[in-house]
This record gives sequence, structure tokens and C-alpha cells, in this order.
Amino acid sequence: MSKLVIVGTVAFDAIETPFGKTDKILGGAATFIGLAASQFNVDASVVSIVGGDFPQEYLDLLADRNIDISGVEIVKEGKTFFWSGKYHNDMNSRDTLITELNVLENFNPVVPSEYRDAEVVMLGNLHPMVQMSVLDQMESKPKLVILDTMNFWMDCALEDLLKVIKRIDVITINDEEARQLTGEYSLVVAAQRIHEMGPKYVVIKKGEHGALLFYNDNVFYAPALPLEEVFDPTGAGDTFAGGFAGYLAKTEDVSFENMKNAVIYGSTLASFCVEKFGTERMINLKSKDVHQRLQEFKNLTQFDIELT
Amino acid sequence: MSKLVIVGTVAFDAIETPFGKTDKILGGAATFIGLAASQFNVDASVVSIVGGDFPQEYLDLLADRNIDISGVEIVKEGKTFFWSGKYHNDMNSRDTLITELNVLENFNPVVPSEYRDAEVVMLGNLHPMVQMSVLDQMESKPKLVILDTMNFWMDCALEDLLKVIKRIDVITINDEEARQLTGEYSLVVAAQRIHEMGPKYVVIKKGEHGALLFYNDNVFYAPALPLEEVFDPTGAGDTFAGGFAGYLAKTEDVSFENMKNAVIYGSTLASFCVEKFGTERMINLKSKDVHQRLQEFKNLTQFDIELT
Repeated sequence: MSKLVIVGTVAFDAIETPFGKTDKILGGAATFIGLAASQFNVDASVVSIVGGDFPQEYLDLLADRNIDISGVEIVKEGKTFFWSGKYHNDMNSRDTLITELNVLENFNPVVPSEYRDAEVVMLGNLHPMVQMSVLDQMESKPKLVILDTMNFWMDCALEDLLKVIKRIDVITINDEEARQLTGEYSLVVAAQRIHEMGPKYVVIKKGEHGALLFYNDNVFYAPALPLEEVFDPTGAGDTFAGGFAGYLAKTEDVSFENMKNAVIYGSTLASFCVEKFGTERMINLKSKDVHQRLQEFKNLTQFDIELT
Repeated sequence: MSKLVIVGTVAFDAIETPFGKTDKILGGAATFIGLAASQFNVDASVVSIVGGDFPQEYLDLLADRNIDISGVEIVKEGKTFFWSGKYHNDMNSRDTLITELNVLENFNPVVPSEYRDAEVVMLGNLHPMVQMSVLDQMESKPKLVILDTMNFWMDCALEDLLKVIKRIDVITINDEEARQLTGEYSLVVAAQRIHEMGPKYVVIKKGEHGALLFYNDNVFYAPALPLEEVFDPTGAGDTFAGGFAGYLAKTEDVSFENMKNAVIYGSTLASFCVEKFGTERMINLKSKDVHQRLQEFKNLTQFDIELT
């Protein structure tokens, strides 16, 4: 099993959807990534920052799942990053109501020394220079570096983003962001452009329409499980990334064939994440639930045309 | 092999896309359905109507593929149905520029007597009462009736549409139309509502995002092949339906398992249709091309997670 380093936010979220609203609850990219990766019992470390207002019980949720939290800096006099958003009726678009960076404004990530030889690094959505700093701390080139990002950094830190993209193996990005990053409408062409920027593997997330994995001229398509209702999409993309990274860290096989499985695991875990508010579903997720849903994914996609 | 009756338009189209524009070329739902179904060498008959302005060579295109055209009424003094449309840059939306019903205004379809015992009936997009008339002419209940329709009939002939929907086995419809027909946003819930209206099988077409096949609580997802460019989407939905119907007529197996294969064949043929204007690609399509692309579909979707 490989070691896995996860960098990203650990945060408070307040969410409003057509189904209800929450007060401040546990959120953050690294939280969702960590919870998803923990399904594989990997040796993972979360690198992040929180304020003195962050409940110990939230950190314990990660620690109880064997995730190292020694890399989570606690700034006693500071406040935890807070995001609040409201989803529209179609659940595909949302308005950000509040973004309070708080301790995130001065985040200098420190990878714990015993994880500087980790084989897999998952750079969650953060300022590209913070992501770069984590890469710079690794003792040797990791076997696999995965990066997740968003349009915000393309708008305000594109040059830095391109620098870090150059150094990674896999990018996970949504369809509109892939189009923005490349100026190409066709996702096939967009993936080619992103290959040219550095990453050998490009994962394009299409929400309810699933995800595409590109590797040179090869492409793999994982559908999203059709759901009666999406209760809260928050964290689904991070959960996908966490499942993807966790599976690859566990199996130690970064071939394209095995990456297909990783995409399926990521999609499977994301399909749980959206069933309840925030991290609620992921915290109570049992491996037999995952197993059963993987079977549903198989039923969803497998067909039996004999080709000779 | 089952006999297949296809009813739908045989028409002129004039198309404008970001890649170019055409004069009046061969189009129509029954044309695309027939060309797709002909890939399976089925015993098919097209029931339609054209004017005296319709070139014999266009009809011969169907006849040359062993499609019976004795059910295509030629109104010498009439003009053929004409549709003209312009696609926007994203190719997912289009404006109708011209619709001239012409001979279609007085279309009373007549199923040739030797096809009134056909086991499979494909009701292409037309006024629901015309679709109903074809069903009424069948000597016995066909093994499988497939219906394609569109939002236009929901707007102006909903009551008739619901009557014919009650009598069919499979409906093929796009995502927005499924939502319009049921008032449900979730496609899973929309499919349940449509089941309640009659059809045991519901196929929801999502364009570049593929197609979903629902059967009670079972669902199957066929992706669309990610393409570098979609040249002209005209006829893709009809080609999908024709591949679906043709495969089922050929294999004489209307089980859910075999319908999955039919959806894959439909998606495969549709992926060719969009590569050139109108019917151009379908007319020159070789079975080895189809075979190769089916392999691409397998590569696109098959994964190898062992579930015990």
C-alpha cells in the first residue's frame, strides 16, 4: 500500500438546497477527500489549517479513520475557513453567498516528515502556489500526483496554475473548467490541449453526466449513477477525487486499466456523498454499501455484445 | 428475423451548422431510421409520403438496402415535407428556420398488407394520430412497438400523444422532453412516471451525454462516444432509434439484457451519423466500421473490478 498525502481545505460549510438548509457544518476539500480515501484503509495524511473555533470532534472523525492529522495546523487565535452557498433547483448551478478565508489567508502547508516519501499526492482545490509548495516538500518525485482545481484559479492565478499543472500526472477538472482552461468546446480536443500542458491523464467531471478519463488517444467513460434525487452536491467532486486517489494508493497500480477502476470507485463514492447534507452520508458509509453500489455500476454499464 | 414496420417522414432538409450549410438534401425520420436499421439486413418496410418533387434516386437508396418502399405514397402534384434549421455553436440547440408540411398535411399512412403481421413496429416522430393509425392497421398485437416523439406534440396534441403512449412498449425521448412530459426534473422519477403511462421500457436520449434505458427499477447507461467534433446532429436521434429497432428485429429477443445491446448499437450508429451532413455518412457506412466502433464502445465503458 502506498502512502497518500492530501492537501486541501478543512472548513465550515453552510448549505442551502431546495431540500433544506444547514448551519455551519463540517466541510472542506481535504475533509471529503480524506473520508473517501479512508474507505480503502490507506496510510493517508491530511495537510491543512483550521482556527481555534474548529471542534476537536471533527478532527477526530478523520483520526478515527486512521488518517494522520499531524499536518493540520491549528491557529488558536484564528477562525476556520467558511463557505456558504445556495443551490438552484436544477442542482447543477449554485451561488456562493459567503466566503471567509480566515486562517486560509496565511496557509503555509507543512507535510509531516514521515509522509515526505509518499508515493501518491492529492492536491485538493487551493491556490496553485500552495499546491506547488506541497510538491516542493516531497523528498523524491512521487509515483503519482493528482491535482484538482477550479475556475476561480484560472481567473485570478492562471500563470501559477499552469506551473503546477506542468508537474502533475492527473488533473481532475469539470467540463466547463476544461473548456475555460483550453478555449476548446469539444472535451476531446480540450483533453488533448491539457495533455500538452503536462498531465498524462485528464479526468473531466460532468456531474450528473458522469466522468471521462483521457490518456493519449484512449478514453474511458464512467456514468454517474442516475439518482431519484440529489440532496446536496457539495463535496461530490472532492469525494470523487478522494476515491480515485485512495484506490490508486491502495492498489499501487497506476496503469490506465487500473485508473478506469479508480474512476468507477470515485463515481461510486460520489453517488453516496450527494444523498445527504455535507459529510453526513460519507461518515456513516459501510463497505457493504459500497460493494452493493459497485455492483449497480456494473449493471449500469456492462453489456454483452460478442465481438470477434 | 422479425419484420419491421417504420413510419415517419421522408423529407428534404436544409441545414446550417458552424461547419457549413447545405441546400435541400435527403432527410426525414423514416429515412434515418431505415438507413440505420438496414445495417442489420432486416426485412423492413418504410411507410411515408413524398411529393412529385422527390428524386427517385433517394427512394432507391432505401430500396437498394432491401427496404420495402411500397408503403411510401408519392403525391405527384404535391411537394415533399421540407425542414430547415440552424445549429448554434454548442450544437445542442438549434433554431427551426422553415417548416413546410406540404404533403404531410394529409398523410394517411397505409401499411402494406404483407407487413401487417410485422413483429416490430417503429413509430417515428409524427402526429400521434398518424402513429396510432399505423398501430390500428396491424393484424395482431406486435411483439414490440417503439415510439419516438418530440416536445412539439406535447405542446399541441398531448391528449392524442398520451393515447398512443398507452399502447406502446418502448418510448425514446430526449431528457428535456421527458421532463416536459412528466413535470419531473429527475430523470429517474420521470422514467417512473412514463412507465405509469404505459411503456415498460423508457429510453431517455441525452445527446452528447449518452442514453439511459429504464425498465422498472433497472437502468442501463450507454455513453455517447466522445467526438472531436460533431459536424451535424440532424438525424442522430432517429439513427439511434433505427439502430435500436433494427437490432431487436434482427435478434428477435426483446429482453432487457438484449435491449442494452440494442441501445449500444443505436449509440454506435448515431456516432457515425453526426460526422457528416445529413445522411452522407450513413449511406457510406460499412459493417467493418460499425464493428470497429463497437469495440471502441466496449473500451469506453468496460472495466474490470472483481466483485465477489
